[in-house]
Amino acid sequence: MEKLLVFGHQNPDTDAVTSAISFAHYLNQMGVEAEAVALGEVNEETDFALRHFEADFPRVITTASNEVSAVALVDHNEFQQSVSDISNLEVKYVVDHHRISNFETANPLYYRAEPVGCTNTIIYKLFKEAEIAIPSQIAGLMVSAIISDTLLFKSPTCTGEDIKAAQALAELAELDLEAYGLELLKAGTALENKSNEALLNMDAKSFSMGDKIVRVGQVNTVDIDEVLERQKDLEKLMEVTNASEGYDLFVLMITNIIENDSKILAVGSGAAKVETAFDVTLKDHTALLEGVVSRKKQVIPQLTEAYTN
Amino acid sequence: MEKLLVFGHQNPDTDAVTSAISFAHYLNQMGVEAEAVALGEVNEETDFALRHFEADFPRVITTASNEVSAVALVDHNEFQQSVSDISNLEVKYVVDHHRISNFETANPLYYRAEPVGCTNTIIYKLFKEAEIAIPSQIAGLMVSAIISDTLLFKSPTCTGEDIKAAQALAELAELDLEAYGLELLKAGTALENKSNEALLNMDAKSFSMGDKIVRVGQVNTVDIDEVLERQKDLEKLMEVTNASEGYDLFVLMITNIIENDSKILAVGSGAAKVETAFDVTLKDHTALLEGVVSRKKQVIPQLTEAYTN
Repeated sequence: MEKLLVFGHQNPDTDAVTSAISFAHYLNQMGVEAEAVALGEVNEETDFALRHFEADFPRVITTASNEVSAVALVDHNEFQQSVSDISNLEVKYVVDHHRISNFETANPLYYRAEPVGCTNTIIYKLFKEAEIAIPSQIAGLMVSAIISDTLLFKSPTCTGEDIKAAQALAELAELDLEAYGLELLKAGTALENKSNEALLNMDAKSFSMGDKIVRVGQVNTVDIDEVLERQKDLEKLMEVTNASEGYDLFVLMITNIIENDSKILAVGSGAAKVETAFDVTLKDHTALLEGVVSRKKQVIPQLTEAYTN
Repeated sequence: MEKLLVFGHQNPDTDAVTSAISFAHYLNQMGVEAEAVALGEVNEETDFALRHFEADFPRVITTASNEVSAVALVDHNEFQQSVSDISNLEVKYVVDHHRISNFETANPLYYRAEPVGCTNTIIYKLFKEAEIAIPSQIAGLMVSAIISDTLLFKSPTCTGEDIKAAQALAELAELDLEAYGLELLKAGTALENKSNEALLNMDAKSFSMGDKIVRVGQVNTVDIDEVLERQKDLEKLMEVTNASEGYDLFVLMITNIIENDSKILAVGSGAAKVETAFDVTLKDHTALLEGVVSRKKQVIPQLTEAYTN
């Protein structure tokens, strides 16, 4: 079989980057030639993790069909979140923990999704099932992704399997989970040097809802008000982006990782859907969603329902 | 968690029926309440297998949302092949070995697909991974499905994993694989007492291709000419069905399970796509496809390409 490229979603977060690395390693051990790449530059948090474990930074690509004919997707499946030429490629493998939408293949494939907090928790199980040893460096990257995706086990997406995998991986990486975890999360909240554009794009993903496209970004912080100091500029940019990209709605979740709440900023013709979805009244385009930290579990299903009912 | 209904596709074949039974048993062992049902009466082959292993016939349903809010799909994922009210249900699990198409969820789920010959081969691996013993009766039903889907290991869809699983399951069921296999396949070729309608519907599935719907049925036989004695009547019925259901094309694969060839009968506006897909000229609506026995691997991808290019 020819070489596969393995990658996570656009605007890669720590799980997108490191699950490509860990799954490519798994495939290599299974006798499948595979290279981990990324669909964008790594963010501060991922940068911290890669440096901490002295790992190579993945090569960044924008198209894949110029290099290969087949790919493996990790941490995503929706085509609009994937490489730009995904329709010209054969998807041979998917390992993911998200809803399935806007995804189709002409041929049978290997697809492994579980409703757990992190793609790397599933990849940990794959290694176990195949009885393949996980090198310490890769274990360190994998546990970083679990910490990141579950906000150190505090997100409602976190399952017992995530905790079990993280503990086993931390042992392999010889890591103090709590101390390293806080350091890692803090590295991801350094927003003050980011441009408005960079902040909106950091972790933003597009979602098909009904016949509309909704853009949902998320930034982690320890001080929501600090982010909202730039609210007016962010709103302007969101409006411009909605117009140029055809988004019906742009939602930014500003998540306080200490308090475990999110303030959402909603801009676009679909803003009323936000009010329906979360039973709130937007005030100056914002609303506080108490206890909401998970886009996947606490925002996307609710918005999808508001758009499809 | 409330009870789940577990079912395979409409017009159930042996894998659709028995993978519902085996996966429901697996879920029960994992502490999830689940009941196997079927989306239609079982065919002769499945009837033979259920009687041979003295298994209960599954209850037949046409809608599920009147009973439950969540379901598990086996041996299919495309909504048009599923229960009629699938859009009102939450899909919690899928175990399948087909392409993914016309499938989407609002929430993360458990999805396990592998490009192997039979759903029960994957379910065999699930039992192994969870270290759950497979009762002899269920092992017998599972191996029947592998024999059926791989035409006793002769289909190009058959993988080493299917053979390995079948051998292990045959041992658990205390079965002579070759002797039982031939008996089972022969039980599925008793077509003479079937009405034309029943024959066309036996194992037919609908597929989205481009913006069209294509219907593809398959009958196994040891004598293709015997089936073609009713060609004119079948054609008429296919035309009527295309008109009433809006199919662009109706293809019937008449597969000789001894010679491992198929004659196809193609009716509808899309008939020219068949000529493109298989590089043949239809003569009196038919063409012989040498060595073609697998709808999934040797017919659907080729037709899809003809429809989308």
